Amino acid sequence: MKFNKLTPDAVAALSAIVGPDHVVLPADADNMYRYTHDETEDLRYQPEIVLKPANAEEISHIMQYCHQNFIPVTPRGAGTGLSGGALAVHEGVILSTERLNSIVEIDERNLQATVEPGVITQVFQEAVIQKGLFYPPDPSSRGSSFLGGNLSESSGGPRAVKYGVTKDYVLNVEVVMPTGEITWTGANVLKNATGYNLTQLMVGSEGTLGIITKIVFKLIPYPPQNLVMLVPFRKEEEACEAVYKMFMAGIVPSALEFMERDAIEWTAKYVNIQVDLPQDIQAHLLIELDGKDKDVLFQEAEQVYQVLDAFDIGEVLVADTEKQKADLWHLRRNVGHAVKSNSIYKEEDTVVPRAELPKLLKGVKEIGVKYNFKSVCYGHAGDGNLHINIVKGNMSDDDWNNKLPEGIKEIFRLCVSLGGTISGEHGIGLVQRPYISIALNEVQLRLMKGIKQLFDPHGILNPGKIF
Amino acid sequence: MKFNKLTPDAVAALSAIVGPDHVVLPADADNMYRYTHDETEDLRYQPEIVLKPANAEEISHIMQYCHQNFIPVTPRGAGTGLSGGALAVHEGVILSTERLNSIVEIDERNLQATVEPGVITQVFQEAVIQKGLFYPPDPSSRGSSFLGGNLSESSGGPRAVKYGVTKDYVLNVEVVMPTGEITWTGANVLKNATGYNLTQLMVGSEGTLGIITKIVFKLIPYPPQNLVMLVPFRKEEEACEAVYKMFMAGIVPSALEFMERDAIEWTAKYVNIQVDLPQDIQAHLLIELDGKDKDVLFQEAEQVYQVLDAFDIGEVLVADTEKQKADLWHLRRNVGHAVKSNSIYKEEDTVVPRAELPKLLKGVKEIGVKYNFKSVCYGHAGDGNLHINIVKGNMSDDDWNNKLPEGIKEIFRLCVSLGGTISGEHGIGLVQRPYISIALNEVQLRLMKGIKQLFDPHGILNPGKIF
Repeated sequence: MKFNKLTPDAVAALSAIVGPDHVVLPADADNMYRYTHDETEDLRYQPEIVLKPANAEEISHIMQYCHQNFIPVTPRGAGTGLSGGALAVHEGVILSTERLNSIVEIDERNLQATVEPGVITQVFQEAVIQKGLFYPPDPSSRGSSFLGGNLSESSGGPRAVKYGVTKDYVLNVEVVMPTGEITWTGANVLKNATGYNLTQLMVGSEGTLGIITKIVFKLIPYPPQNLVMLVPFRKEEEACEAVYKMFMAGIVPSALEFMERDAIEWTAKYVNIQVDLPQDIQAHLLIELDGKDKDVLFQEAEQVYQVLDAFDIGEVLVADTEKQKADLWHLRRNVGHAVKSNSIYKEEDTVVPRAELPKLLKGVKEIGVKYNFKSVCYGHAGDGNLHINIVKGNMSDDDWNNKLPEGIKEIFRLCVSLGGTISGEHGIGLVQRPYISIALNEVQLRLMKGIKQLFDPHGILNPGKIF
Repeated sequence: MKFNKLTPDAVAALSAIVGPDHVVLPADADNMYRYTHDETEDLRYQPEIVLKPANAEEISHIMQYCHQNFIPVTPRGAGTGLSGGALAVHEGVILSTERLNSIVEIDERNLQATVEPGVITQVFQEAVIQKGLFYPPDPSSRGSSFLGGNLSESSGGPRAVKYGVTKDYVLNVEVVMPTGEITWTGANVLKNATGYNLTQLMVGSEGTLGIITKIVFKLIPYPPQNLVMLVPFRKEEEACEAVYKMFMAGIVPSALEFMERDAIEWTAKYVNIQVDLPQDIQAHLLIELDGKDKDVLFQEAEQVYQVLDAFDIGEVLVADTEKQKADLWHLRRNVGHAVKSNSIYKEEDTVVPRAELPKLLKGVKEIGVKYNFKSVCYGHAGDGNLHINIVKGNMSDDDWNNKLPEGIKEIFRLCVSLGGTISGEHGIGLVQRPYISIALNEVQLRLMKGIKQLFDPHGILNPGKIF
């Protein structure tokens, strides 16, 4: 695909669409900086222009212009992505959705909400809780991530284990096509058997098929009670085993998170929270139960203890106060940042059927020995979604750049052989692109590329991602 | 699209793939009969041949042959569809999945199951209950419908209101492409951010994009307790109002079904169950609550009574015994059959946001007065999914064929104006095809037709459906 550089005329035309106050050019290095990176490793790509449109109509004009002139457009939410999806790898335009930031409606009669893509996840969650309603998806970055980005990457988070991921709450989406047309993808209903599912094709397409400009979510009643416990295990693999044993016993926790010893130790230091960590503890499970009734939760907690009885565990910490609960979650949410502050690292977002977690973890450690890397593992064990942070530590640059990718391939091949795949919630974006053929066969890739070509005939929307 | 008729050579070649015992030809009228219709009105279309392959490989050979020779192929499950999806409207091949009928694996460790498409829905449900597991989707036809058909139409059923529809349980699908390649669409995982969502594109595509040959479902723990009640209302619209008031009060029933007076009266007669129906009762809600704990259900029932207090209702019947529960469900599941036995009819599968149900019901009755038709309404009110059975009664053939479609268009336009669409769980198939442009705009249709062209370049798979 051959793209055009922005001429002075193009800069003028695009700037006129959004107005001069809503444009950032490379000369303005201070304001440009934040648009050159996301949260993926330490990658940097500078666009030729940043545009901050106000609405779908302005986005439509931008897309028409860029389609006609073969100018690449990279859509961007809050830039909290972990696969490089918001990076302008072919330069051109960064299209930021930051000004499309209003909660259009919270419809309490229908338990639905309509929002723009630039609303921060947590802001939305808190707004609906005010009405007694619940929007469960909560990626770790929820304090800053945008809902549009959550849709694009099919984000998950800890509560997915009981409530499902972002995609499970999306009823309908308004998008601007790469060619400029504005359309909704479906209807505002819980069931829809009217034509192909364009809504779910758009969700998780990493900003390559269209630009999301409105979202209709379904909501559910808010479960007011919860119970949080931290369970230390003397053997990592037993922690993984306890995960699926819990489901087999009929327990569906609202979160079931795994953390290796290093994950919790480094993070406790990083966020300055005191955690008592005996020498023989190798891993923890963070378990949350939620519901309407406190007594029912205590009964469920009893069942959890019965399952845990079969394992070699330390003393269970049950969070008694809201402060303790918040501390435990703060700890969990900051593992990624803590590892990042400790060393250069790469984060892999592996996912397998949940009972295969012990095999995955064991395999990752063996591959680490073979390729001489250290890994810190944690994640949404209830979903079989294990984040593997590979730490550079003392590894030479040569090994890091040339030998490690072979080790990553082995990890991904292991995931696929266990019935899993290479990304559960971060997306493929830029950084997992070299590995895509481990997860997808030729037929799947041909179909996906065909869909891309159909939606975006000039290939201008977020080029260089996924494929 | 120009298709070829089957030559004697084609008949021989196709028969050789599946073996002579697994072929039905028109000369064998007795065996052919069942393949000429489904449950949609009284439509009849005879194929040139029926093939009953044993596995994906045979289906692949059939598709390769038909692709090369431009022979239409209509895939068929149990033939319980309500939109004509399994009818061979362009003749050619009926490809029946009846021999792909094994439950390959129920994986208790991962709460997953792998099945072939020809497994009967209820057979699968009962097999997983034996393991303490739950597959919630339960279309009314579950005693005979195939799981493959459920996927193709994105089937729902009463429990969707709490547990979601068929699509929400599909993790991965093996399909034979119209061109003959065999591929899986995804991975066996709860979260997947690896490329476009081909799985959800296949689900609900009404057999037009590929032939499903294996399905991996997710399962959940079985909720052993339930509570069923039948609530009579003196005003239809109050029954509809009570539906969304219940959700606003934080109650999520496992079923919340609406039945007009005629629906329950005709069906009670049809299935020979005694129902005491005072003259002033216009409608009923059938409410089911489920969960792990009987006491919790009684508490929830109290909350339901509190909501109902605001409405003019008759005496609530709470089913005390399993027999009473079964009778109530038997009644509900047979409304469609009862109406069919009463008169020629057309069934519309409308869906709107649930709080708009009172407006939809009122509008349907007004349109009925205008076009002089009687309707019997019932359905999954908790999902906003209202089945409208239009009864021919004394209407002239001319009005039925020429005037009624205008009335149906008005109903569908009303649905769309309320944020809804024209099919919630039956699909578009053959009979709703003339109305598709009421629900889908030009951009959506262009994208869907483009996807069809990409998957099936010769247009041989289930031609004449959806578009």
